[in-house]
Amino acid sequence: MHALVLGAGRVGQAIARDLAADSTWRVTLVDRSPEALASVARRAEVHTVEADLADAATLRRLAGDHELVVGALPSFLGFAALEAVAGTGRPYVDISFFEEDPSVLDETARRHDSTVVMDCGVAPGCSNLILGRALADFEKVERFVCLVGGLPAERRWPWEYKAPFAPNDVINEYTRPARFVEGGEVVVRPALSDLELVDFPGVGTLEAFNTDGLRTLLRLPVPWMKEMTMRYPGHAEKMRALRESGFFSPEPVEVEGARVSPLALTSKLLFRQWRLEEEDEDLTVMRVVVEGRRGGRRERDTWDMVDRRDPESGLSSMARTTGFTCAAVARLVASGRFQKAGVSAPEEVGADAGCFEAVMAELAARGVRFERRVEEMESA
Amino acid sequence: MHALVLGAGRVGQAIARDLAADSTWRVTLVDRSPEALASVARRAEVHTVEADLADAATLRRLAGDHELVVGALPSFLGFAALEAVAGTGRPYVDISFFEEDPSVLDETARRHDSTVVMDCGVAPGCSNLILGRALADFEKVERFVCLVGGLPAERRWPWEYKAPFAPNDVINEYTRPARFVEGGEVVVRPALSDLELVDFPGVGTLEAFNTDGLRTLLRLPVPWMKEMTMRYPGHAEKMRALRESGFFSPEPVEVEGARVSPLALTSKLLFRQWRLEEEDEDLTVMRVVVEGRRGGRRERDTWDMVDRRDPESGLSSMARTTGFTCAAVARLVASGRFQKAGVSAPEEVGADAGCFEAVMAELAARGVRFERRVEEMESA
Repeated sequence: MHALVLGAGRVGQAIARDLAADSTWRVTLVDRSPEALASVARRAEVHTVEADLADAATLRRLAGDHELVVGALPSFLGFAALEAVAGTGRPYVDISFFEEDPSVLDETARRHDSTVVMDCGVAPGCSNLILGRALADFEKVERFVCLVGGLPAERRWPWEYKAPFAPNDVINEYTRPARFVEGGEVVVRPALSDLELVDFPGVGTLEAFNTDGLRTLLRLPVPWMKEMTMRYPGHAEKMRALRESGFFSPEPVEVEGARVSPLALTSKLLFRQWRLEEEDEDLTVMRVVVEGRRGGRRERDTWDMVDRRDPESGLSSMARTTGFTCAAVARLVASGRFQKAGVSAPEEVGADAGCFEAVMAELAARGVRFERRVEEMESA
Repeated sequence: MHALVLGAGRVGQAIARDLAADSTWRVTLVDRSPEALASVARRAEVHTVEADLADAATLRRLAGDHELVVGALPSFLGFAALEAVAGTGRPYVDISFFEEDPSVLDETARRHDSTVVMDCGVAPGCSNLILGRALADFEKVERFVCLVGGLPAERRWPWEYKAPFAPNDVINEYTRPARFVEGGEVVVRPALSDLELVDFPGVGTLEAFNTDGLRTLLRLPVPWMKEMTMRYPGHAEKMRALRESGFFSPEPVEVEGARVSPLALTSKLLFRQWRLEEEDEDLTVMRVVVEGRRGGRRERDTWDMVDRRDPESGLSSMARTTGFTCAAVARLVASGRFQKAGVSAPEEVGADAGCFEAVMAELAARGVRFERRVEEMESA
C-alpha cells in the first residue's frame, strides 16, 4: 500500500511512523516544515515531501500518486484538504477535527466510489467506534456518556493543563455551546457547565464538564447522550471566571487607543503556559458508558482507558491514542475490510464487529488498552 | 471654621457632608464634575466650586481663601494638590492615598508652621491611630497586625468583589511587593501571599493575604508588623492566577499587529464587573492586633470593626469609615487639639490619648464602632 500522510505534527508523525513500520506499506509524509519532516525521517522509513498543505493543486497531484490518503492537519486546513483529495477519488482517513460539515463532500466521494472516514481519533474516534459497536450489539441503546481528557502528568498551578493539540481549539471547547441529547431531543448547555468529580484509578480525582464533542453521534437513535471533558479539579472554575469576565470574547475592546480582541490577548498569555513541550509527559484519560437492553437484560458497559506518553518512541499520549486509532482505521480501509462509498463516521466502522476488534487489538498491541466492565442494571 | 474640601467623590462627599452638619463650619466643596457637586449640595449646606483639581494655581487661590483644606482626591492627583496647598501654609488633612513620599513637603509645611496630616482613612488611618496610641500606652509594643477589607455585601461569582475606590489601586495592591517588619528587619513578600482564613462574626469566613499597606508605620520601633487585605475566600487564588499568567503586566504584548498592555485590557474587563454602584451595599471589615508589655504583663489588644453602608445617608461603608475618620482629624486640627508643624501621619495623632478618644467617639457617634478586647498573654 502506497499511502500519503498530510501533516507532520505530533499526530501525523505518529501515524506515519506506525504505518511505515509495516513493510508492506510505503509512506509519503507531506508538511511545510523541513524540520518536522527530517525529525520523522530520522525515526522511520518515510519518503518526505516539503509542500504547502493549503495548496489544493499540490494536494490533488500528490493524492493522485498514492493509493490512500491520511489527513492529520490543523483543524482550519482539514476541510479544504479533504475537499481537494475527494475530487481524486482516493480513499481518505482523517483526524483533522475540522468544524465544517463534511457531508457536503459525501456526493463527490460516492461518485468516485471512494471510502472517506472522518474523526478517527480518540474522541471523536474511539468513542464513536464503541457506540457504533454498541448499537449493533445491544437491542436498544438507552444512554451514552463519553468523558475524555488530555492532561499533563505534572500538575502545575494555576491551570494544571497543557494543550496537546492547537490551543485555540481548547478555548473554542470552553466557549462553544455543548449539544447533548436528552429524552431524544437535542439540548444545548453552556460549555464548562454541570461540573462533576470523577475518580480514575492511578490518576486520582478529575473534574468533568460539558463540551460540544458529540458531533456525528448526534444523528444516532440514542435518547440520552452527552460528552464531557476532564481536567484536574479547579481548571473549569478559572476558565469560567475568565470567560464570564469577557477574556474569551473575540469582539474587539478599545484599550489605550487601540482595538484589541480579548481572546487574542488571552490566547497569547495562556499559550505560553499551556505549551506541551516535546519532553513533557502527558496522559489521555477516557471513560465511555453505554447503557441499554441486551439479551433481555438491562446492561451497562463501561470502557476505561488511561494512556501515557511513551518515553521510548517520544510520542505523546495524545499522539499515540489519536494516531494509532487513525492508522488502524487506515489499515481497515486499505485492506477493504471497511469499504463504504461516501463520507463515513467511525461509528459506521465500529458497527462491524471485525473492524471494531481489529482497531481495539491494534491499539492494545501498542499499549493503548480499553478496559471493559459489564454490569447488569436494575430494570427501569 | 471655613474649610475647603477637594474632591466630591464618595469619600469627599462624606467628609463635606459631615463637616457641614456642624453649624460652626462653612464648607466649600471643589470638583470638576457639576453633577457630583450638585448631588452633595442637595443633601448638605455646602458652597460648591467647579474647578480642575489638577490646576495648582486654582488650588492655591482657593486654599488661600479658606482656613483649612481637606484632600479627598484620586491617588494620582493627591501629591500635587498637597504640594500646591503646602505653599499657602494652610493646614491640610488628606485621604488621597498617594504613592509619593510626602516628607519632601515637610520642610515647606514647617516653614509655614502649618499642620499637615496624611493618610487619615481606615487603613491607613484608624490602624495608625491605634498603633500610635498603643506605642504610648504599652511599655513595649512587640507585634502589630492589621487586617482590613472593603467588600460587597452581595457575593457574586466569580470575583465576589467590588471596588469601593479606584479599581486601578486595587490591582496595584495585588502586584506591589508587600513590606513587613520581622524581628526588627523590613522584609518583602509578594502581594497575595501567605493566605489565611479569618472568621468575622456576622460576616463569616474571609481570607487574608499580604499587601503593602504599612506605609509610614514601617518607621516605628515595633519588631513585628504586617498588614493584610481581606476578601471573600477564593478571590486571591484567581487574582494570583491572572497575575502569574501575565494579565496584570503593564509591559505591552503584540496582539494582532497592535501593542497592548495586558494590565490595561484586564483593568477594562474587570472594572465592568467590579464597579460598586451607588445603591450597592458594601461593608468594611477590620481587625487590628497589638501585642506587647503593659503594666508588667504581656497583653494583646484586638480591635474589631465591621461597618455597613448606611441606606439613610446613602453613604457607602468605605466612604463612612474613611470620610468620618478624616473629618474627625480635620476637627482636631481645626480646634488646635492636634497641632504639629510639618507633615504628620495619623500615628502621631493617636499618640495623644485625647485626640485618639475624640476620633473614636466621633466614629462611634456615626455608627462606626471599634470593639476592643484585651487579653493577657503567656510570658515569652
